[in-house]
Amino acid sequence: MAYTEYFTPTHVYFGPETEKLAGKVLKDLKVRKVLLHYGSGSAEKSGLLGVVRASLTENGIDFAELGGVKPNPRLSLARKGIEICKTQGIDFILAVGGGSVLDSAKCIGYGTPYDGDVWDFYCGKKVPEKIVPIGAVLTLSATGSEMSNSSVITSDEVTPNDKFGCNTNLGRPVFALMNPELTYSVSKYQTGSGSTDIMMHTLERFFHNGPNLELTDEIAASLLRTVIENTKRALENPCDYDARANLMWAGSLSHNGLTHMGYVSGGDWACHRLEHELSAVYDVAHGAGLSAIWSSWARYVKHTCPERFARLGRLVFGIRETDADKAADLTIDSFERTFQEFGMPVRIRGLGIDASDDVCMMLAEKASLKGAKTLGNFQILRTEDMYQIFKAAK
Amino acid sequence: MAYTEYFTPTHVYFGPETEKLAGKVLKDLKVRKVLLHYGSGSAEKSGLLGVVRASLTENGIDFAELGGVKPNPRLSLARKGIEICKTQGIDFILAVGGGSVLDSAKCIGYGTPYDGDVWDFYCGKKVPEKIVPIGAVLTLSATGSEMSNSSVITSDEVTPNDKFGCNTNLGRPVFALMNPELTYSVSKYQTGSGSTDIMMHTLERFFHNGPNLELTDEIAASLLRTVIENTKRALENPCDYDARANLMWAGSLSHNGLTHMGYVSGGDWACHRLEHELSAVYDVAHGAGLSAIWSSWARYVKHTCPERFARLGRLVFGIRETDADKAADLTIDSFERTFQEFGMPVRIRGLGIDASDDVCMMLAEKASLKGAKTLGNFQILRTEDMYQIFKAAK
Repeated sequence: MAYTEYFTPTHVYFGPETEKLAGKVLKDLKVRKVLLHYGSGSAEKSGLLGVVRASLTENGIDFAELGGVKPNPRLSLARKGIEICKTQGIDFILAVGGGSVLDSAKCIGYGTPYDGDVWDFYCGKKVPEKIVPIGAVLTLSATGSEMSNSSVITSDEVTPNDKFGCNTNLGRPVFALMNPELTYSVSKYQTGSGSTDIMMHTLERFFHNGPNLELTDEIAASLLRTVIENTKRALENPCDYDARANLMWAGSLSHNGLTHMGYVSGGDWACHRLEHELSAVYDVAHGAGLSAIWSSWARYVKHTCPERFARLGRLVFGIRETDADKAADLTIDSFERTFQEFGMPVRIRGLGIDASDDVCMMLAEKASLKGAKTLGNFQILRTEDMYQIFKAAK
Repeated sequence: MAYTEYFTPTHVYFGPETEKLAGKVLKDLKVRKVLLHYGSGSAEKSGLLGVVRASLTENGIDFAELGGVKPNPRLSLARKGIEICKTQGIDFILAVGGGSVLDSAKCIGYGTPYDGDVWDFYCGKKVPEKIVPIGAVLTLSATGSEMSNSSVITSDEVTPNDKFGCNTNLGRPVFALMNPELTYSVSKYQTGSGSTDIMMHTLERFFHNGPNLELTDEIAASLLRTVIENTKRALENPCDYDARANLMWAGSLSHNGLTHMGYVSGGDWACHRLEHELSAVYDVAHGAGLSAIWSSWARYVKHTCPERFARLGRLVFGIRETDADKAADLTIDSFERTFQEFGMPVRIRGLGIDASDDVCMMLAEKASLKGAKTLGNFQILRTEDMYQIFKAAK
């Protein structure tokens, strides 16, 4: 039986000052003790952490703290969080930050009620059966982790690092407090990178090997058009509330399942997997890594179904070319130009990485586990295909 | 603090044969005894109830049954359901049908753990604090009750009948099994009426008195365009899977909160309230009642913000007229023509009702509780306004 599941239980509170609801929401959930989890300084400096702490205290919620999450969040820090949760009777983890903090919180949540090594869940040895529930105060529009089932963690215990994901419905946050004003201070580069990530979550779902639901295609195109338009506005004026609000909500919708509803396969995801190798080894911003690869992937797989690229180009950019192959080229060019307008690289060298042929082969072998697995389903990629894509993207 | 909440916890299983998952899903939820609740014959004749019963039995789920739900579901039948649930230890209600069966199930769910009269929740005397959880096997694309917080019940214990709603997050079903093939047998009239209801859930949200989120406007327009296109297809070929699938998913999205995300007011809803008086007194199909009123409401309130009507017309019908007032007129005309193409009435007489001025005043006084309350927020309506709208819609 082939069906699609849609499950988005996260209770979203969206608008200015919603971070102040943290204590009340946790109290209503009858939480006893929270782990307040955050990044490397900006949430402290901006005063946001102070607001959240005050909200917890006012509502009588006890809490411990763990800061220091970096982009491409590390296993070693998550292990510290698991230790704190196990020893201090934590029954809820509140992530204050972007996707890295959320993914780290999910890892801590999985590891706390588990007797074994939490990395088991990321390298596919085990499937988690429990989690310490997660909530979010979101400060970055990008990964959609505030509603998604996904957590991606980088193991800094091996060289080169491994970056693996664990996707389960347990990982969907219980609530997300989403105040677009908290993203006013996000830099131009991180804004562009975040928007690329948002777009890629929908693009990865759009290209798949099954039948399509017209409503989902239309919503996907609405989302992509809106992100393109509002990223440009946010880059011009970082404090444009409407632009930041559109990006924030688009980030959640792009990865909560809405943009693959009715697509039985769930998407392709080859670009994400190829990028994970780049960011595991070179620690680049995820969105920038995605834009460096996408157009090379697209040109490599285009022949599989140029009509699908043409449809996307018509819906998003109004491309009217009737020859599917030419329309597909125009579509790929348009996305490439868009990423460039966001200030993103569209080749790996734009990340400051000199990807020799040997490096391309190393990345391809890492992505395919030395040929043991393929990537994608729109077109299935083997090691040689991955190598050719990395080479084209140099 | 002005914010929007988005909360859609319903776990959706979407695709052919998903009704067969009923027993397994209930077993996973550790349900002990179900009330199987349904309508007046079609689910039995089609064999659907047999499939669902077999699925429950195979999974060891005990169940009682209550059929007989009619369109505009009645309080008296819900009372019977409450009695069954209270005396037979029911801990889950499985609605097999459309919005009427779901709304009746929600009413039974509210009433079972409550010592007082369940009607208290509908006439606003009390707010429910508990519910016996609900699941759905959906057979009609219309009300969106399978993901919404809404239950609308008609009291057949007073003359003329009262039709009131109870909206709480408790009322959102735990799961919904959505097989578009189950709607192949829906008549042309019910298909048109259902699609009108779907469109109205988005239209009622689009017209409101606050700022707009561009992404939500774009998604709303995508949904409306898709419903218009696919209703025509389903009317031509009732067994067109893609058309039925688009309508079914649009029905859920149109009323689960997605199409008012970022709109703080939550929508206008005056048309729904005016229509509830029509269907309470004359027992008409809800969607048909809505199309009979909408264009008269729209022409009456248009002057409040013709630019909003113009924006909708541009997004949905591609209307390029630059004069906002003229564009608003063209937009209203286009929706009116669309409802007619669905086979729906656009005046009350098209429902077979001779609405004299006295009848219009009776309906207006009923809707305003004799002047005690106003309707709407895009433009606030008083009794005289409601009377004028009913008169224009005669």
